[in-house]
Amino acid sequence: MPYVTVKMLEGRTDQQKKELVEKVTDAVVETTGANREKVVVFIEDMKHDHYAVGGKRLSDQ
Amino acid sequence: MPYVTVKMLEGRTDQQKKELVEKVTDAVVETTGANREKVVVFIEDMKHDHYAVGGKRLSDQ
Amino acid sequence: MPYVTVKMLEGRTDQQKKELVEKVTDAVVETTGANREKVVVFIEDMKHDHYAVGGKRLSDQ
Amino acid sequence: MPYVTVKMLEGRTDQQKKELVEKVTDAVVETTGANREKVVVFIEDMKHDHYAVGGKRLSDQ
Amino acid sequence: MPYVTVKMLEGRTDQQKKELVEKVTDAVVETTGANREKVVVFIEDMKHDHYAVGGKRLSDQ
Amino acid sequence: MPYVTVKMLEGRTDQQKKELVEKVTDAVVETTGANREKVVVFIEDMKHDHYAVGGKRLSDQ
Repeated sequence: MPYVTVKMLEGRTDQQKKELVEKVTDAVVETTGANREKVVVFIEDMKHDHYAVGGKRLSDQ
Repeated sequence: MPYVTVKMLEGRTDQQKKELVEKVTDAVVETTGANREKVVVFIEDMKHDHYAVGGKRLSDQ
Repeated sequence: MPYVTVKMLEGRTDQQKKELVEKVTDAVVETTGANREKVVVFIEDMKHDHYAVGGKRLSDQ
Repeated sequence: MPYVTVKMLEGRTDQQKKELVEKVTDAVVETTGANREKVVVFIEDMKHDHYAVGGKRLSDQ
Repeated sequence: MPYVTVKMLEGRTDQQKKELVEKVTDAVVETTGANREKVVVFIEDMKHDHYAVGGKRLSDQ
Repeated sequence: MPYVTVKMLEGRTDQQKKELVEKVTDAVVETTGANREKVVVFIEDMKHDHYAVGGKRLSDQ
């Protein structure tokens, strides 16, 4: 606790994801006082054909 | 904003998904007055072995 | 099935929410061929101090 | 209704998932009085490189 | 881990919720072999005017 | 995009939440290269009687 979910377009590198969870965890610990070992981060990849803004999927643009 | 998530069984065609996000976006804009360019739609596919009703997965029926 | 979640800022009227679920359900049925009686819609209200774009909550703008 | 989502690390067998949804459904029916046929269970697999505790992904440990 | 979310209509008693999380946790441990101390359960209440089946909210029926 | 959801126990102050969304947004921008104006953060409060670890709700401990 806290539980953080980051939903983003597929395509980020493994290194980017590694740093993302580290830095986001740092941010949560620093601002909420949570115990670092209790912070959980989930990453969810979105596909271009499953994500739309303004009624248009990225894969249709 | 708003953010709409549509979770459904895998197997819909690309054309169906394209029309789904268009029509759902239309519905949201028409009824909430949201700015069309701000409406976000996420599609999530469910697999037959990861979805159960009444304690039984679709893949077990 | 499908399961639709609409997350939006609090403040819409009851009538707007009533029409929202009707029209979104129509859109899902029309484009996916789902059985109308199986379509589920959840509404989730977001508070102004629990929603941020660009690192700034709506309540701080 | 209710709608139950079980998010867990990938790697469970098909048999484990089959029993999981049965037993979880039993537990929900027994304690809430819900109609068994209305209980819905979703399983979501997490990948080792998309799940972190304490700022470290399982795939980095 | 696993992380279980139970979304249900508001109105269950505190005792029902207490037993729900116990029994659901039992079911998860028994079928997945997860360490009991790692199983997390979240309850989410749905309001009658924020939940619709077949295009009609419970509050409109 | 990305869309970040932070689920945590109720009770953090408004100032903590303000700083949380700023720092988490910084972390996402720094590590993914996302456009800061596109990063969205949602906060979700958990109640003590709606959150359990090891089959026991916080409110029962």
